[in-house]
Amino acid sequence: MKGNGHHGKTGVSGTSLNGTGGAGKGVHDGKLHVSVNGSLYPAKVKSRRQRWEVKPSEMANNTFNPIRAIVDGMKLTPNKDKPMIALSIGDPTVFGNMPTDGAVLQAMKDAIDSQKYNGYAPSVGYRESRQAVANFYSCPEAPLEAEDVILTSGCSQAIDLAISVLCNPGDNILVPCPGFSLYKTLAVSMGIEVKLYNLLPEKSWEVDLHHMESLIDERTSCLIVTNPSNPCGSVFSKEHLQKILKVAFRHCVPILADEIYTDMVFPGFHCPSMASISSDVPILSCGGLAKCWLVPGWRMGWLLIHDRNDIFGSEIRQGLVKLSQRILGACTIVQGALESILNNTPQSFYNSTISFLKSNSEICFKALSSVPGLNPVMPSGAMYLMVGIDMDHFPDFKNDVDFTEWLVTEQSVFCLPASAFEYPNFFRIVVTVTEEMMVEACGRIREFCQHHYRPSSCNSNDLDQ
Amino acid sequence: MKGNGHHGKTGVSGTSLNGTGGAGKGVHDGKLHVSVNGSLYPAKVKSRRQRWEVKPSEMANNTFNPIRAIVDGMKLTPNKDKPMIALSIGDPTVFGNMPTDGAVLQAMKDAIDSQKYNGYAPSVGYRESRQAVANFYSCPEAPLEAEDVILTSGCSQAIDLAISVLCNPGDNILVPCPGFSLYKTLAVSMGIEVKLYNLLPEKSWEVDLHHMESLIDERTSCLIVTNPSNPCGSVFSKEHLQKILKVAFRHCVPILADEIYTDMVFPGFHCPSMASISSDVPILSCGGLAKCWLVPGWRMGWLLIHDRNDIFGSEIRQGLVKLSQRILGACTIVQGALESILNNTPQSFYNSTISFLKSNSEICFKALSSVPGLNPVMPSGAMYLMVGIDMDHFPDFKNDVDFTEWLVTEQSVFCLPASAFEYPNFFRIVVTVTEEMMVEACGRIREFCQHHYRPSSCNSNDLDQ
Ligand SMILES: Cc1ncc(COP(=O)(O)O)c(C=O)c1O
Ligand SMILES: Cc1ncc(COP(=O)(O)O)c(C=O)c1O
Repeated sequence: MKGNGHHGKTGVSGTSLNGTGGAGKGVHDGKLHVSVNGSLYPAKVKSRRQRWEVKPSEMANNTFNPIRAIVDGMKLTPNKDKPMIALSIGDPTVFGNMPTDGAVLQAMKDAIDSQKYNGYAPSVGYRESRQAVANFYSCPEAPLEAEDVILTSGCSQAIDLAISVLCNPGDNILVPCPGFSLYKTLAVSMGIEVKLYNLLPEKSWEVDLHHMESLIDERTSCLIVTNPSNPCGSVFSKEHLQKILKVAFRHCVPILADEIYTDMVFPGFHCPSMASISSDVPILSCGGLAKCWLVPGWRMGWLLIHDRNDIFGSEIRQGLVKLSQRILGACTIVQGALESILNNTPQSFYNSTISFLKSNSEICFKALSSVPGLNPVMPSGAMYLMVGIDMDHFPDFKNDVDFTEWLVTEQSVFCLPASAFEYPNFFRIVVTVTEEMMVEACGRIREFCQHHYRPSSCNSNDLDQ
Repeated sequence: MKGNGHHGKTGVSGTSLNGTGGAGKGVHDGKLHVSVNGSLYPAKVKSRRQRWEVKPSEMANNTFNPIRAIVDGMKLTPNKDKPMIALSIGDPTVFGNMPTDGAVLQAMKDAIDSQKYNGYAPSVGYRESRQAVANFYSCPEAPLEAEDVILTSGCSQAIDLAISVLCNPGDNILVPCPGFSLYKTLAVSMGIEVKLYNLLPEKSWEVDLHHMESLIDERTSCLIVTNPSNPCGSVFSKEHLQKILKVAFRHCVPILADEIYTDMVFPGFHCPSMASISSDVPILSCGGLAKCWLVPGWRMGWLLIHDRNDIFGSEIRQGLVKLSQRILGACTIVQGALESILNNTPQSFYNSTISFLKSNSEICFKALSSVPGLNPVMPSGAMYLMVGIDMDHFPDFKNDVDFTEWLVTEQSVFCLPASAFEYPNFFRIVVTVTEEMMVEACGRIREFCQHHYRPSSCNSNDLDQ
């Protein structure tokens, strides 16, 4: 074959002689050495490893999933007389009671049959699919075009893109507390500092605005707002969102609005997107199919760029495009199905999901409200409910982790201790289990608490009440 | 609702008083200030931004896709009398002549219908799917278990995971030249240096081992070997692979073997996995469905951990698991279909893909071998063919970019200039187009070259021959 020894000159000139290839890199310290095969290499051999020492990188070491860290450290041995009920898993599909809609499945099968979606998509996603997302979320106050949408591998990758484009190592971001743990996991792995701003349970988890503002400094490059909230299930009012926007505007900090639960809001509540009530703060909004369409495993998310004052400008947009090229994101079959999923899923599907979540939340809230020592906070959306523990009344347990661990041991009910959200003395309940399981679980929690509750002794606690 | 103002004490103690929440972060410089709402904040306001200045991060700026950079800079205006033929796109699906197998599509539809694959999978993938990959690639010399497999969002994410776990900023990796550009894109964006080792076209693109070895220093944390190669289509012999392994062993450098084209090898050639011929070098091998199953858009890849001497140990494995939790990768529908895809795709499908690629490669190689000034190198696998340009004979053009740009202008044939692979004076042909297009394209390339070819004048070049 011609490939063997036939045109070596051309090949060598392609790298060594033109100097644009790799060979130039072999030349070090100015000292050259002509090796047996005629190439130029350094005379002095650099110091090299003598034995194997392969260690994980700093980034791997700094990648920390607090939920895993806490759960893996717990002794979870259920009571074998009671079947386990896990209220800990933020995945609505695990109990089989919340299937996605038939229209969603059909859209996928059509995409497969079309054979049009097997190849590479552009790194930001198919144009038609981006247009479909733009159409779905566009509103007169915050219009969107296809080029304002980047399709991602789940909402998680949208969060990663947003943090990656806005922040350098040494910068800091503001993150809600309690809040979704991925923000911190990603930021810390990239050398970005995380500052937690408090949410106030006594105000339905509104932001402590003074606290938030006090944390901002000149290295604050992003303010993350999660609305509706995981783990709180809270939904901010328009007025409250406006106050948050004012803080961001005053200090010129762009917002990442995690709005993945945006259409999962109980009747009577309203959840405007942050972008729709602000024209002066640049906002990246992220979302995806995971929650409202009940297919988290499909890894279909998006990032929406709202920049009506041209503050992100073309630079941030180009930065996002470049970052999207590192790893291509969303599966093309799901991308191909997206337009049909968004347009053909019947309203009744969304409605029944929401009314189920609301009903289960109410069952849980009512049941636990009357349990001495527990303080549930009624959610207005999403699929979570936070419960405060009056630790003073449960002297048997050191903290929320200890409390929830024993709840498994005695009652085979597992709730995530809110330490996993940096918020001790609470636990989170996921309300996607069947109604029957929810009722049963609440009964067991009541029994557990009644068993361990101790009325306050005559100490400083009483003075507090 | 109970959430409003009912149990504020619990909430505040959850963060401020316990000191484990976010409030502690509001305390700076030892100076405290009790604000209107009773919380503690710093007295001194830190300096904050006065105006908007949102700039993309260093990482975004350092994310650089050489193919895009070069192609976007080219004036690609086809000759309107000739229909465009793109031999540039490394996506076998674009011409519609290489559909995936029906068994692959059926596996996907079954996965959708089962409704078992809508929820979150573990970050490393479903166990059964990992087991299926392990079974598919396991061999007596390099046995694999499910825990040795991590499922990823395309082979790209497997490459990202491997580099991310092995390298710190300031380290360097060795990368083939010419080679697949993603290695450099990813590494540079992470602050990792890339050293290019030369492949030798006159030796069917074998590695220049002396050059490779000369580049290794004590900060070399990974050696990337692509076999079969993109862009060369070359396949290394077992003996050559053994020599590469010896270099890695001598200097204690772990290998990332990019083996995504491993089963795309022409009859008569054999492509052992690196792991199967080494027991002493720790190897991460990456692959995926993209190429052999002709579904690159589905983003299904994997990383295989070969570590029979326990050099990676549990630390690197845990590092990989932690990194996989940053962004969940592969779509669960594809994961759910994977076992069936691997087990039920008929051998005839792989065979016919390979014989088509071989036949098209031969057509192209034969046609261009007889074109004065061109030096094609016959591939032994994958779906690419590299062609050297004797630039001396084409004085009309400055370089390979100029050459391929004019080839579009005059002949409406687009080939990727190999400058995109850091290898000037070559261009790459993708051999997945229809036979008809391949014949037509080669005819036009011949016409173009005949038109521009100038015999050597009496200069130093002649002395070289
Ligand atoms: C607030 C919030 N944002 C983002 C995500 C991640 O979404 P995805 O699964 O699409 O990556 C979750 C998942 O639980 C979430 O709760
Ligand atoms: C050598 C090589 N490795 C990896 C990849 C990326 O594969 P994937 O599309 O599965 O991410 C490619 C794609 O062209 C390739 O040529």
